[in-house]
Amino acid sequence: MKPHRTIELWFDFSSNYCYPTIMRVESLAAAHGVAVQWRPFLLGPIFKAIGWSSSPLFLHEAKSRYVWRDMCRRAERFGLPFVQPSVFPRRTLLPMRIATLASESSWIGEFCRLSMLAHFGANRDIDTYEAMRGILDHLALPSAGLMADAESETNKALLRRRTEQAMVRGVFGAPMIFVGQEMFWGDDRLEDALEWATR
Amino acid sequence: MKPHRTIELWFDFSSNYCYPTIMRVESLAAAHGVAVQWRPFLLGPIFKAIGWSSSPLFLHEAKSRYVWRDMCRRAERFGLPFVQPSVFPRRTLLPMRIATLASESSWIGEFCRLSMLAHFGANRDIDTYEAMRGILDHLALPSAGLMADAESETNKALLRRRTEQAMVRGVFGAPMIFVGQEMFWGDDRLEDALEWATR
Repeated sequence: MKPHRTIELWFDFSSNYCYPTIMRVESLAAAHGVAVQWRPFLLGPIFKAIGWSSSPLFLHEAKSRYVWRDMCRRAERFGLPFVQPSVFPRRTLLPMRIATLASESSWIGEFCRLSMLAHFGANRDIDTYEAMRGILDHLALPSAGLMADAESETNKALLRRRTEQAMVRGVFGAPMIFVGQEMFWGDDRLEDALEWATR
Repeated sequence: MKPHRTIELWFDFSSNYCYPTIMRVESLAAAHGVAVQWRPFLLGPIFKAIGWSSSPLFLHEAKSRYVWRDMCRRAERFGLPFVQPSVFPRRTLLPMRIATLASESSWIGEFCRLSMLAHFGANRDIDTYEAMRGILDHLALPSAGLMADAESETNKALLRRRTEQAMVRGVFGAPMIFVGQEMFWGDDRLEDALEWATR
């Protein structure tokens, strides 16, 4: 059997542990000779279907405190800026729709990194036309047209479909990394997933 | 400030992710020049106080399936035998009481490893006099006397006190590793905790 030289990264910009994964994945995958398929989906409807009112990481106070401390340490370890968001979880529907539209484009990685840097590196609301215009301008892309396309019925339906696919495949959190049918959950399994893809 | 050259390992034999940690901790800590303090406590009362009927890892089917697959992969990676327990979570009160009695002894590490190998490496019920006699005999220890001491009111109260201490310190899962006040949760944070202890 040919090894899977591709990983699928299922992500949601609202998820804190997606931040280090999104920042690290392309360079790490390139170093392993592995391609990344970007798979934006919405965690909210999945948590709701499971019966969780929010991420299970944030339903208990001591655990939430721990997760933010863990995020600080991981960000420090990977040399990433990190500010605990003053609003959490944040709405990220517009950037998620743009990511859906762009998921096969050459700029998807850089778009995701800039969005997550604004969200978790600088504590900014990224669910606004202004924030997205700033990032798309930074990438020298036609922001008005892209935002209109992102909000088209076709693209909105595509994001809903991706979310349904995630549910069918057993996704219950993010980041979720697939290597073929093999699932790896969490930023702390990113290296394992890449090793699996190359073995 | 002097570095913390000690880690506290808070554990419960019923927790699956405690298995790889208990198997790995002493040799890994020794390689880092770090001492291990063994801190047995009961997860059940903590989950109950939080309002969880079981570990949050096992309250949803797709997540449970994932955790067992993840356990298989971790066991393979660390060269450990692993059989998914046919009963889970298993009662482990007698071995936990023996661990409480023995937590400052020279044989605590080996006792914990043998108990966890029986539980997660061989799918055996370890909450019996027979299972514990086998392990204590293996260690050439006076099993009858130790089991009686383990079930004394004093020792039972000590385990309850440890569990209360864990709750006060914000423990919400296991393994939980403390380096001073710094908390590290999960087998996948063991190396981070040891690095923290030596920095």
